[in-house]
Amino acid sequence: MSSQNYRSIAQKKLSNLQSLIPKAWRLPSIPSPLPLDVRPLIAQSNILTAAELSITSSHDATSLSQLIHSKALTSEAVTIAFCKRAAIAQQLTNCLSEVLFLPAIEQARALDAEYHRTGKTRGLLHGIPISLKDTFKIKGYDSSIGIASLAENPARENSALVDILIDQGAILYCKTNVPQTLMALDSMSHLFGRVKNPRNRLVTAGGSSGGEGALVAMRGSILGVGTDVGGSIRIPAMCNGLYGIKPSTQRIPFSGQELGLLPGADKLGLQASAGPIATSARDCELFLKVLADAKPWEKDPGVAFGGWEGQGDLGKKPLFGILRTDGNATPLPPVAKVLDETVRLLRQNDVEVVEIESPAFRKCQSLANSFFGMEGNNNMLDMLEKTGEPLIPWLSGRLARKKPLGAAEIGKLHARKAELEKEMLGIWKDKAGRTIDVLICPVAPHPVPEIDRWNGVGYTSSFVLLDYAAGTLPVRDFVEGDLHGELPSDAQVLGSWDKRNRELWNQNTVDRNVYLNTKLSVQVVAPRLQERKLYQAMALIDEILREGGKEMDKSKL
Amino acid sequence: MSSQNYRSIAQKKLSNLQSLIPKAWRLPSIPSPLPLDVRPLIAQSNILTAAELSITSSHDATSLSQLIHSKALTSEAVTIAFCKRAAIAQQLTNCLSEVLFLPAIEQARALDAEYHRTGKTRGLLHGIPISLKDTFKIKGYDSSIGIASLAENPARENSALVDILIDQGAILYCKTNVPQTLMALDSMSHLFGRVKNPRNRLVTAGGSSGGEGALVAMRGSILGVGTDVGGSIRIPAMCNGLYGIKPSTQRIPFSGQELGLLPGADKLGLQASAGPIATSARDCELFLKVLADAKPWEKDPGVAFGGWEGQGDLGKKPLFGILRTDGNATPLPPVAKVLDETVRLLRQNDVEVVEIESPAFRKCQSLANSFFGMEGNNNMLDMLEKTGEPLIPWLSGRLARKKPLGAAEIGKLHARKAELEKEMLGIWKDKAGRTIDVLICPVAPHPVPEIDRWNGVGYTSSFVLLDYAAGTLPVRDFVEGDLHGELPSDAQVLGSWDKRNRELWNQNTVDRNVYLNTKLSVQVVAPRLQERKLYQAMALIDEILREGGKEMDKSKL
Repeated sequence: MSSQNYRSIAQKKLSNLQSLIPKAWRLPSIPSPLPLDVRPLIAQSNILTAAELSITSSHDATSLSQLIHSKALTSEAVTIAFCKRAAIAQQLTNCLSEVLFLPAIEQARALDAEYHRTGKTRGLLHGIPISLKDTFKIKGYDSSIGIASLAENPARENSALVDILIDQGAILYCKTNVPQTLMALDSMSHLFGRVKNPRNRLVTAGGSSGGEGALVAMRGSILGVGTDVGGSIRIPAMCNGLYGIKPSTQRIPFSGQELGLLPGADKLGLQASAGPIATSARDCELFLKVLADAKPWEKDPGVAFGGWEGQGDLGKKPLFGILRTDGNATPLPPVAKVLDETVRLLRQNDVEVVEIESPAFRKCQSLANSFFGMEGNNNMLDMLEKTGEPLIPWLSGRLARKKPLGAAEIGKLHARKAELEKEMLGIWKDKAGRTIDVLICPVAPHPVPEIDRWNGVGYTSSFVLLDYAAGTLPVRDFVEGDLHGELPSDAQVLGSWDKRNRELWNQNTVDRNVYLNTKLSVQVVAPRLQERKLYQAMALIDEILREGGKEMDKSKL
Repeated sequence: MSSQNYRSIAQKKLSNLQSLIPKAWRLPSIPSPLPLDVRPLIAQSNILTAAELSITSSHDATSLSQLIHSKALTSEAVTIAFCKRAAIAQQLTNCLSEVLFLPAIEQARALDAEYHRTGKTRGLLHGIPISLKDTFKIKGYDSSIGIASLAENPARENSALVDILIDQGAILYCKTNVPQTLMALDSMSHLFGRVKNPRNRLVTAGGSSGGEGALVAMRGSILGVGTDVGGSIRIPAMCNGLYGIKPSTQRIPFSGQELGLLPGADKLGLQASAGPIATSARDCELFLKVLADAKPWEKDPGVAFGGWEGQGDLGKKPLFGILRTDGNATPLPPVAKVLDETVRLLRQNDVEVVEIESPAFRKCQSLANSFFGMEGNNNMLDMLEKTGEPLIPWLSGRLARKKPLGAAEIGKLHARKAELEKEMLGIWKDKAGRTIDVLICPVAPHPVPEIDRWNGVGYTSSFVLLDYAAGTLPVRDFVEGDLHGELPSDAQVLGSWDKRNRELWNQNTVDRNVYLNTKLSVQVVAPRLQERKLYQAMALIDEILREGGKEMDKSKL
């Protein structure tokens, strides 16, 4: 693609990005150092009008959809408000990769006119601005995925999901920053810099959909689309205190993205899926339901047949399982505590929760890692070397060339996977043989950690290996009272993942105070292709947490 | 497994099989040569009582299920009748590989007692004998798939489907013969000999589920389960004048079978699926519906979530497409004619049928072949060489060692597949953009051919490549009037497949009279994972054919 040095490409990309932000939306100055929480700077900048602050702060996508349908708001007004806020978010957190503000505002006007003319909207997403991870291709724009040699190569066609979202009336106004190669859990690239966590600049914004996480946390987007093959939706959702769902593969159109892989390589290993990052559980449903009912299988052959109603049902007497550990890294005290609290509240509200133990769960992480490493990173490193691009800190020491696995070896991984999938069926039954509807477990064995310190992707990658539907749900703020827990003194170190995990709590290796100003979250998991059941469970837990939360604040913390 | 010569293994396997047929069920003599149609020999043998002949001849599985439920018949009586008839079928057509008659009859008695005691059946398959292709593992029995070195190695556990069928009350009483290695379309092995076509011993019984096809055509089974990765359900269904459905993968539990592959190799290429071979369309529904509603995804992680009601719906005003050729082998006159007749009858009955042309369809067969060849046949040939086993005639000249493809090359095949899947979406829309519900096309470009002359698997393998649901439906007998058609004189030879196909009609290379005493069939195809819609379409076409058929006989033939 390019014989230029990565620096000159990065300079051009970034200055092009900056030039697409209208002068009136530029912050006159950016405090240095930034405050711990940059979010208050949005209102302080006076760039957004009071109405625009209200549009972007006081609603979720579902509520904005209602207001657009009732003509209380135009798509144009909503789109301008989010473009402005995304512009500020970019200046404070480096969350964007591509900017489409002007065409988006034009598209919004056209949709308003269409609604005015026909009296009909395109559906629930009509006029709603939606942000996309950089992997999605939009005709005429780059999908550089944080790699200089992929830049300056505008897409010639849209990803399948992009076409469907446009059909459904969504306004695509920006794409978001990712880690170099996508293969990191902290979103930094030499093209666009490091995505910062809006709420607490000391901790990570997560990855690889880190730009989405930061943008939505800034409310520079009300609904973002990420992708997840190891945790890349759920991790930034947790880091930014948001709701995120990783559906099973075959659910949301995934084809036509830039993944930096050799042709067809994604079909040989673990497949990623696309899903929503949002400020409410119901916005995850909005996204999944609209997509399911748009008959995406008629547009992307990788999508399974079946509308929203066919994606499972929680029923009136659901049975929840609690899976407290993956057996590789014991959850640190605040993580164990927030799981406990969640289970206690569910039980207080007459939801039955049973303990689930799974020795097989322990095997998932290393098998998932074997799949991730099967190509030996050669293609990514080739692409980096083309422009002399060095590795970002996260990848340094992690991403090295290895011999690619042969077909027979990859086959063996699949055979092990098939065995493990079978063993793991056991987690969906309680001791009496009843079917477990959903599982609750940690998103990670630690709270939101400092930059570049995310450890132990097993709690998320396992459910990619198994292709279960899984989502992240914010429970509450990390508070002073959470600082004092300790692991049981007799707790054995389980291995290297556990050892590194303990370093995130050991006072010699971390200042625990960094966890203040973060959110504690839990993960909810449903069997494969049961996204509706997953959403229903997340909504139920969320409702109970929101109602019980205040009481709990008083009595427990 | 074995250092013995294949001959001694084959001798032992066959004599063991024969020894499991009770003396009273053995034919006192077998005419040599056999008559063209061996089916009349069943009644002539007097081995079955009149009641047993009626049970096996006058019902389909749906009707037998009703009779067992109403207690008009016991499972024991039904099972004994089918065991006897299967025993005769074996003696006349070599259709079996494993015999479980005695345990099956015991199981039937136990199910009768259970029903008597509890007043409840296990469901619609309660007490119904079901035959299985040899690939399915039943604990304690071989799955030798026609390879001597795999024999004498009884399965240690059941295939997932076997467990579910037993739970649902099915009686498993035999497994059926397949071609050596499964990779042939004529079912011959050195272990069990060649499966013969009951209706016409001059033509093939098809493969690889050829034993199933012959057994069901003999009514030695009322419902058989085959597997299909290139046409292995649909081809023997056509050869034996039966109904057969190849579901999409992920629909019917497939795990735990013997496929003769390296571990996990099936996950890298095209995946096979299991499905019914039956004497009526509604028995295909019976099988698919019972399986779908048994929540098979809780037992086989490879199965997609979703009950029968979620597998598509034909609606009241369906739109059918007719796909007349794959562009590689022009259908011979009787095949084109039976398609025409079917379309005409549908239109006469107010079903809208539109012409579909697809240049992309032509590309499917060669891509499917590339997938089939990716492992270079090395594992199969290793297994054969262990016992000095020579290739069967079908494979001789076809199965040779090649260099296995590497992972990157397999990835490229998947990339081409993804592109072709996308191109092929076009066949599901008519020119006005309306959605086509199902397609009608040939099963093969030729009628049921002579032994070892099946040509051009593209009409069936393409829908494995694309993972569409597809079924075979018998239309009518091949009659004298069908002998006289000719290809248009200006029809261009499309390539080597077309050239070989013409040899099946050219009077210098075939005696067309061989096609008398065969059935002409059509294929019906639905989009991926829409098995219910497929069945509904097959049932509708079948109903129209059965009602219109007589009239047509008079007016047209």
